[in-house]
Amino acid sequence: MTARYRLHYAPDNASLVIRLALEELGVAYETVLVDRRARAQKSPAYLALNPAGLIPVLETPGGAVFETGAILLWLADRHGALAPAPDDPARGTLLKWLFFLSNTLHPAMRMIFYPDQYAGADIDAQARLRTHMQTEAARHLDTLEAAASAHPDLFSGTTPSVIGLYLGPALRWLALYPAGETGWFDLARWPVLQAMAQALETRASASTAARAEGLGSAPFTAPTPADPPEGAAL
Amino acid sequence: MTARYRLHYAPDNASLVIRLALEELGVAYETVLVDRRARAQKSPAYLALNPAGLIPVLETPGGAVFETGAILLWLADRHGALAPAPDDPARGTLLKWLFFLSNTLHPAMRMIFYPDQYAGADIDAQARLRTHMQTEAARHLDTLEAAASAHPDLFSGTTPSVIGLYLGPALRWLALYPAGETGWFDLARWPVLQAMAQALETRASASTAARAEGLGSAPFTAPTPADPPEGAAL
Repeated sequence: MTARYRLHYAPDNASLVIRLALEELGVAYETVLVDRRARAQKSPAYLALNPAGLIPVLETPGGAVFETGAILLWLADRHGALAPAPDDPARGTLLKWLFFLSNTLHPAMRMIFYPDQYAGADIDAQARLRTHMQTEAARHLDTLEAAASAHPDLFSGTTPSVIGLYLGPALRWLALYPAGETGWFDLARWPVLQAMAQALETRASASTAARAEGLGSAPFTAPTPADPPEGAAL
Repeated sequence: MTARYRLHYAPDNASLVIRLALEELGVAYETVLVDRRARAQKSPAYLALNPAGLIPVLETPGGAVFETGAILLWLADRHGALAPAPDDPARGTLLKWLFFLSNTLHPAMRMIFYPDQYAGADIDAQARLRTHMQTEAARHLDTLEAAASAHPDLFSGTTPSVIGLYLGPALRWLALYPAGETGWFDLARWPVLQAMAQALETRASASTAARAEGLGSAPFTAPTPADPPEGAAL
């Protein structure tokens, strides 16, 4: 049997979001480890799948899809789950928060984790950018906390939509990375999101993903650094 | 007659993308000027529509939608135009490039236009961030140029999809802003995107939007600073 989908992943990377979605959908998939230590995501073979050179890529029978948000929405619509259908009254709300995660929270995380890619080699400039973006991330989480209160269905942890599957890992990464620079983060400040994350991590999808990528027993609410069975979280 | 949609806009802001889409769809809409000089996008009334305090918001019969990419996709699916349908084989390609614009090119533009919001008050740090992100933006345009060659239907200027409607204004803004800091940008470096932008600006949607927001006669390929009949481009 050939799996319908092939996920190019690295442990504890954005690909985790897609693994959770595939597990929730219960579809057959296989994974291909992208060796970030060898910068395999910049290899010609990988760039042919995603010219932006970023993880994840999902190979589908209709071609390669990339961008976390795009893959989530594509899978949801293809399988009729994890998001309101295009003609559902809740679709607009789903889309605006999915794009907010992709366009606002996710770029803020990139700047927190990799400030050198934006601020250059100057250590002080890196530290200032990181501190500023952590303040911004906290503000974005305040916004998301209010949205989760207003739209409990879309931010549910027990019957998750793509929003929760994106947000659970994001809360994990903000708590963990970069090591030694996470004192600003306290999940208890956002109790609705915390409850969502708690519910999410009891699901089989989270347990399976946590085993596959070495994420520990409370991957979203009390995360420990990844200890993956293959590859390395960088 | 009451218009079906109400677009909260500021001249030459991201709302321009949505105005183009509404014009292309030929649907009735009205506009509400958001007075950025008075920071009206941070007023309680506006934050009730978009808690992120950003322009645009589209009020619809089903509620307010925000995030440029989300509004585009919502409108396209609602009206069955400007994007392949959810079950179309080209849907994945549309989604990945729409999210790329929203998640990668758009944040880079924000950092180029408003480096103080990321780098703090230090002028040198702002200049370094801007220069770095202009280099990044050029790389993103290289990526988009190749995508446009590979997917002429989705990047068409004569039968535009949401991709072109997002990208035309982006090319405009990169050419114009910030004043005095655009020497790096030369649209001729990306001839496929240039041809797309040329075709786009001959369309009635572009002419109407250019009149409404004071964008001149070649708003995407040879832009001049906005001279709007109401409000101000900031």
